[in-house]
Amino acid sequence: MPRPFAAPPRPTGASVARDDLARRLRATRAHTLALARPLSAEDQVAQAMPDASPTKWHLAHTTWFFEVVVLQPHAPGYRPRDERLGRLFNSYYESLGPRHPRPQRGLLTRPALAEVLAWREEVDAALDALVAGCGEAAWPEVASLLELGLQHEQQHQELILTDILALLAAHPLAPAYRDDPPPPATAAIDPRWGPPGWWDCPGGEVELGHDPRDGFGFDNEGPRHRVRLAPFSIARGLVTNRQWQAFIDDGGYRQPRWWLSDGWAAVQAGGWEAPLYWRRDAGGWRAFGLDGEQPLVPDAPVCHLSFYEAAAYAAWAGARLPTEFEWEAAARALGVAPPGDAPSAPVVLRPPARRSEADLQCFGAVWQWTRSSYDPYPGFRPWAGTVEEYNGKFMVGQLVLRGSSVATPPGHARVSYRNFFPPGARWQFSGLRLARDLEAPGA
Amino acid sequence: MPRPFAAPPRPTGASVARDDLARRLRATRAHTLALARPLSAEDQVAQAMPDASPTKWHLAHTTWFFEVVVLQPHAPGYRPRDERLGRLFNSYYESLGPRHPRPQRGLLTRPALAEVLAWREEVDAALDALVAGCGEAAWPEVASLLELGLQHEQQHQELILTDILALLAAHPLAPAYRDDPPPPATAAIDPRWGPPGWWDCPGGEVELGHDPRDGFGFDNEGPRHRVRLAPFSIARGLVTNRQWQAFIDDGGYRQPRWWLSDGWAAVQAGGWEAPLYWRRDAGGWRAFGLDGEQPLVPDAPVCHLSFYEAAAYAAWAGARLPTEFEWEAAARALGVAPPGDAPSAPVVLRPPARRSEADLQCFGAVWQWTRSSYDPYPGFRPWAGTVEEYNGKFMVGQLVLRGSSVATPPGHARVSYRNFFPPGARWQFSGLRLARDLEAPGA
Amino acid sequence: MPRPFAAPPRPTGASVARDDLARRLRATRAHTLALARPLSAEDQVAQAMPDASPTKWHLAHTTWFFEVVVLQPHAPGYRPRDERLGRLFNSYYESLGPRHPRPQRGLLTRPALAEVLAWREEVDAALDALVAGCGEAAWPEVASLLELGLQHEQQHQELILTDILALLAAHPLAPAYRDDPPPPATAAIDPRWGPPGWWDCPGGEVELGHDPRDGFGFDNEGPRHRVRLAPFSIARGLVTNRQWQAFIDDGGYRQPRWWLSDGWAAVQAGGWEAPLYWRRDAGGWRAFGLDGEQPLVPDAPVCHLSFYEAAAYAAWAGARLPTEFEWEAAARALGVAPPGDAPSAPVVLRPPARRSEADLQCFGAVWQWTRSSYDPYPGFRPWAGTVEEYNGKFMVGQLVLRGSSVATPPGHARVSYRNFFPPGARWQFSGLRLARDLEAPGA
Amino acid sequence: MPRPFAAPPRPTGASVARDDLARRLRATRAHTLALARPLSAEDQVAQAMPDASPTKWHLAHTTWFFEVVVLQPHAPGYRPRDERLGRLFNSYYESLGPRHPRPQRGLLTRPALAEVLAWREEVDAALDALVAGCGEAAWPEVASLLELGLQHEQQHQELILTDILALLAAHPLAPAYRDDPPPPATAAIDPRWGPPGWWDCPGGEVELGHDPRDGFGFDNEGPRHRVRLAPFSIARGLVTNRQWQAFIDDGGYRQPRWWLSDGWAAVQAGGWEAPLYWRRDAGGWRAFGLDGEQPLVPDAPVCHLSFYEAAAYAAWAGARLPTEFEWEAAARALGVAPPGDAPSAPVVLRPPARRSEADLQCFGAVWQWTRSSYDPYPGFRPWAGTVEEYNGKFMVGQLVLRGSSVATPPGHARVSYRNFFPPGARWQFSGLRLARDLEAPGA
Repeated sequence: MPRPFAAPPRPTGASVARDDLARRLRATRAHTLALARPLSAEDQVAQAMPDASPTKWHLAHTTWFFEVVVLQPHAPGYRPRDERLGRLFNSYYESLGPRHPRPQRGLLTRPALAEVLAWREEVDAALDALVAGCGEAAWPEVASLLELGLQHEQQHQELILTDILALLAAHPLAPAYRDDPPPPATAAIDPRWGPPGWWDCPGGEVELGHDPRDGFGFDNEGPRHRVRLAPFSIARGLVTNRQWQAFIDDGGYRQPRWWLSDGWAAVQAGGWEAPLYWRRDAGGWRAFGLDGEQPLVPDAPVCHLSFYEAAAYAAWAGARLPTEFEWEAAARALGVAPPGDAPSAPVVLRPPARRSEADLQCFGAVWQWTRSSYDPYPGFRPWAGTVEEYNGKFMVGQLVLRGSSVATPPGHARVSYRNFFPPGARWQFSGLRLARDLEAPGA
Repeated sequence: MPRPFAAPPRPTGASVARDDLARRLRATRAHTLALARPLSAEDQVAQAMPDASPTKWHLAHTTWFFEVVVLQPHAPGYRPRDERLGRLFNSYYESLGPRHPRPQRGLLTRPALAEVLAWREEVDAALDALVAGCGEAAWPEVASLLELGLQHEQQHQELILTDILALLAAHPLAPAYRDDPPPPATAAIDPRWGPPGWWDCPGGEVELGHDPRDGFGFDNEGPRHRVRLAPFSIARGLVTNRQWQAFIDDGGYRQPRWWLSDGWAAVQAGGWEAPLYWRRDAGGWRAFGLDGEQPLVPDAPVCHLSFYEAAAYAAWAGARLPTEFEWEAAARALGVAPPGDAPSAPVVLRPPARRSEADLQCFGAVWQWTRSSYDPYPGFRPWAGTVEEYNGKFMVGQLVLRGSSVATPPGHARVSYRNFFPPGARWQFSGLRLARDLEAPGA
Repeated sequence: MPRPFAAPPRPTGASVARDDLARRLRATRAHTLALARPLSAEDQVAQAMPDASPTKWHLAHTTWFFEVVVLQPHAPGYRPRDERLGRLFNSYYESLGPRHPRPQRGLLTRPALAEVLAWREEVDAALDALVAGCGEAAWPEVASLLELGLQHEQQHQELILTDILALLAAHPLAPAYRDDPPPPATAAIDPRWGPPGWWDCPGGEVELGHDPRDGFGFDNEGPRHRVRLAPFSIARGLVTNRQWQAFIDDGGYRQPRWWLSDGWAAVQAGGWEAPLYWRRDAGGWRAFGLDGEQPLVPDAPVCHLSFYEAAAYAAWAGARLPTEFEWEAAARALGVAPPGDAPSAPVVLRPPARRSEADLQCFGAVWQWTRSSYDPYPGFRPWAGTVEEYNGKFMVGQLVLRGSSVATPPGHARVSYRNFFPPGARWQFSGLRLARDLEAPGA
Repeated sequence: MPRPFAAPPRPTGASVARDDLARRLRATRAHTLALARPLSAEDQVAQAMPDASPTKWHLAHTTWFFEVVVLQPHAPGYRPRDERLGRLFNSYYESLGPRHPRPQRGLLTRPALAEVLAWREEVDAALDALVAGCGEAAWPEVASLLELGLQHEQQHQELILTDILALLAAHPLAPAYRDDPPPPATAAIDPRWGPPGWWDCPGGEVELGHDPRDGFGFDNEGPRHRVRLAPFSIARGLVTNRQWQAFIDDGGYRQPRWWLSDGWAAVQAGGWEAPLYWRRDAGGWRAFGLDGEQPLVPDAPVCHLSFYEAAAYAAWAGARLPTEFEWEAAARALGVAPPGDAPSAPVVLRPPARRSEADLQCFGAVWQWTRSSYDPYPGFRPWAGTVEEYNGKFMVGQLVLRGSSVATPPGHARVSYRNFFPPGARWQFSGLRLARDLEAPGA
């Protein structure tokens, strides 16, 4: 019998508007279905590799999450559709019993997609009923758990896209996810992003991390705390495909001197000579993406990189990657707000100079590897209950990425958001920006 | 551009009846579809393990085989539906260009099942037209190739069942392939098989292998040749579940003395303690099969064994496995005919005593591991052309199985048939019979 | 032709005394030989596992390091004994050409141990001659490189012990490294260490990292920089064998809730149920060590742990591991000096209360895993030249350990020393101390 | 307590001369030491790969074998030097208790080589005493076991050479096993071997296998039995280095059509492009051998091949490998006797034509892969007792090699000898001869 999840910390001072939450829930759940729509049932059952999951699995897992986190403990009389589904669609919660092995998710041809969709509808209806009928006393906790389920589903929306891209990329005929791509030149590029420049920060002490008064945040984004920064400079723009080609052309993938030791081993073991989905033909490099194989857009941010590659590029460029603290300090200082988000959090560091609009290319293109290992913040404490396993147990052997990508759903990004992946992961929408020390330390 | 296949040896003296071949072709192709019918499109795309293939892949591969072996070289004006499909559905023909990696067949969500079925219809129509329109001069070779395609498709019919069983067995909820199983006690058991006994053979020289005058045979079944046999005794019946339980209960899986060295390593590496699909619960052993998980039928032949297990059991029982020559000699001597086949080939060895009907349990239950490595027969020569790769290149590291199984389609078994798998393979419908030396050698 | 190493930063204000450096060099080189003395030539050639190296390899590698870093660029007329030895005894310097694969160091039966010892003598003589004859102008750089070679050799002294222990532990007869162990109860335990207590730190801003004015430090220990710390409490003592047994007895190795996700996977893959060299017999747990297999000393610090185990224990104990910054701040605040080292660096943080002698058990027992990933300090820049590869290229996927162990040679430990290993490494002399937040964050 | 070995079948009609056996025992034991003499203790402890063993291990294992097979059951009052050594030096006898893992034999630095040599002397003295003092009643069985120990030691003499060659070949500096090689052109070549020709056999029934009246034979060489052979032709000479170069030059290693399926996979996985120890430099191919790296001798037999390569070459040459039965029949028909052996066994097949001396190049150069899987002969029964595990349990997944090599000790080869290795093994002194069908089957 699973323990009910305890609630994550409640939004401060909140009487959360029920209508608004119900509306966002419905929109989020519908958006997930919209992402799956271009795919057949066959497409949705296959698993590209152990790290990726089938689309159907994502559809079911997010539904199971609502069932076990919200409905079972809080919806009176709710009965799970099938007690056995937890075994299939539990991702990694040890406290919730045995799980189907992750590398075999592609073998779950049952339940059929149609059944999963029916289950989604039932759960959606139960969620609606819960929002409408929940007593006032219970509402804050229920609202908090609903928000968690919503944010969790948004995370899987991005994974649906990264994982289906991995599947299509493994197909010899390179099929496209969608047939009607947006005009390529503008898909991921904001013309305001260039020309690139640097933003200098004199350093000092800053307050970083999620502030509960700003709304929802994952446990790993807090607690808010003070960090001392040395002076640094950070690039306003992201490294582009054109710049990456220069790295390749200069033998970047063949010279161990630019690489971390583990990175060089990965280059050799994997035969890496370009970002994950780049393919060379007679006419030069092309990139496989959601729109199929397309010519490279030279000024678009380079994408599908490992941390190893990002760090090697930075060394080759005579720079380094920013720490996650530098990244967040710069974003806060410049008042960069993620798309669709609430107004920016208060700036803590004073910018050294006047700034223009949209100064720093933070959100909506590619996640940006930082030079920060994914360690807990001082005073970090995981949520209580089973969601204790949500983030904290992955805090070793991974690196932090900041920002958000073209695949991140609207409203999900935050300036304090800490994404994390192992240093060799390349199938996410991951790129980089550069940083450098502003003055010699101790000088 | 693939080389056309050269024809395998033609049936001797044959003016093959076109109507009959056309009828058998249609029936065979339809039977394949019937096997797939209980499965959804999702079921048909998944691959249980690298050794197994998805159902859809089997449907497409057998179709591609007809296209490349028969239609492209012999049907005037035939255009393959899509030149690129060869890359996806070529199994192992090196001479036909690059192939999609075998372990990634489960990633081929495109073409969709519906497209594959449409392709099958097109090819079926083209085959019908070819049979009807082929000139007399070309007919013998075309007939020979059509027969090869038919036999090839029958091989994949058995694989569809073994491979889908592996997939369903990997599912935590153990779904059944079919909902309306035949009555269990009679599914695979012929009451005439018991009580078991032995058949004694005085030895001598026998002529074995496929005789082209008997109709189609694969290249590896010939040439027909003479073999000298020492006196031996062979069990009339197959080892049963009840007998296998005695082996388990006696610690058979825990005592290295019964096992070949590689077999003992496999037991330990795989944690084997019973046949592949056996599962223990409070009420004893159950077996997973096409009808889902069922209680063991004690007198049914034990199934889903590796060669290692078969050889260990034989050692434990104070016996041995028969060689493939002993098996064939006995089957020929007793005049055992496979179901639906032509009348038995002439008996070569004289049986030592009177015999009753259906003396030897050869066909229709389980393939029987023999103590013969899969080596070429004296004078073996592979077919010319690309079908050169059909059998010969696998003649190392495998063991011969004889007979046929419940999953073998009607009309496919032969007394000279040589099935072969690596010694650790367990997902086929494989069992064993015992043999022993009749008198001490040299006595 | 290898580039000469550039010098690491020189000691500030130093006219290093030649006599003193020569004496320390000779003593260090002699100590290495003394460590190898209990071992036969056969013992010295074998490699326990890919992560460990043979003793002879350590003897040769440290000699090669002096040859290539000091003698070739700075000793006029020096000729390397054999140009080909670099290939054998280069550890990981990509810039110095191809290397013998690390997992095959145990195959280097040639050159014989006697030849390696003769080479050591030649190099020792050449080093002596260089110290005596080096011109004044070149001396500061030469002195700096000699110091680096000395420190490098000390690092390998500890590895000689950890690696030979791994070799002896893999032997079924469990031979001891030395026959005349020190009295067991006092080998690694300082009776003043107990009873354990905690030291509270109010937090604030501290200055940490190596100060070049204090003498030699590796590049990864700097630059010195300011860090903001939240209030915390740190255990004065190390976790003991007795405490670890309580963790085992409470099912610590069987409950996923205490473990990081990767740690739990390591427990299951490795079948871990105790620290690396613990063995259970009828009389309870025993530990294999340099003195062979011995009963556990309950109050000695637990040893041979992975980071995963250390972190799991801390979670089980309701505490956490200290960060490397907390560790260093506490050590500096309490004025703890490593054995044989110069007087402690100036204290930066004010201790909250009076302190007694030897307050914090920092050095000489076991390295202590911290909750800090091995990331570069702000402003970190590797040494120039080939020693660029010395530390920086390992700065991903590893965790920092602080302190020193019983195997660390005298004079090598520093309060700013950053040892580092992957989170699953267990063959070092590694243990842990606990820490906890002093007050709730944000409170 | 290990069961004593039961004796292998005794030589027929034998009152074995004690003096002669004692002399042969001493000579054999001394020859083993002579093989180890060019090697240092360091050389003798290292293990090149899991399939190979250290020289010291061979020295100890053969000694342990005499102790456990002969002395413990039959020498009154004999006490094993150290009961614990069985664990270290038991090769694969499951019935004799737990064993040190094979891949870790290189970690057995203890007991020291000197101790192993002392143990050998003790055992030699005890064997001498047993021969002298054994009662008449017990002597036949004791003599039989002593002969087995002697033959077993001879097998390990060949392995000492193959395994030390693997070790030296893995060393970057390519050291030679011996400094004073025999003149290269004649080392392995008998000038009478060329020019090659073929020997034709009309086929028929032959009697093959070991005849106990001819002296010692391993259990796997019998029982003697009759085999029916089709007409065939067999090459008198072995395939040479010159011929192999033509295969390489013709792209033999790059064309899948010549290869068995598993063989082609091995070529690709291992990056094979020549026999194991061939190395290409500017002047062409060289071969590493016991005399170090030397230019190829074009007319010497090609060596260090896998079965896969041998079979591919035969296919490329339009021929095939002989079966082990054809090999033995030809050797017997031509009266070829191994060097130092007793006069040839009686010829069974009639040769079709006059023959000259030393017609067939069978012994003393390279073992010759046959096209026969290592299956039991009809009526095969392993020896009783623990030596039951000697040969029979390896009878799956291996191929038979016939003849003997330059590394085979004098007096060890037999015309019925069945050597066996997995098809991918290349570190033995293995080559090939060709065969072909004499007339089309069925003609």
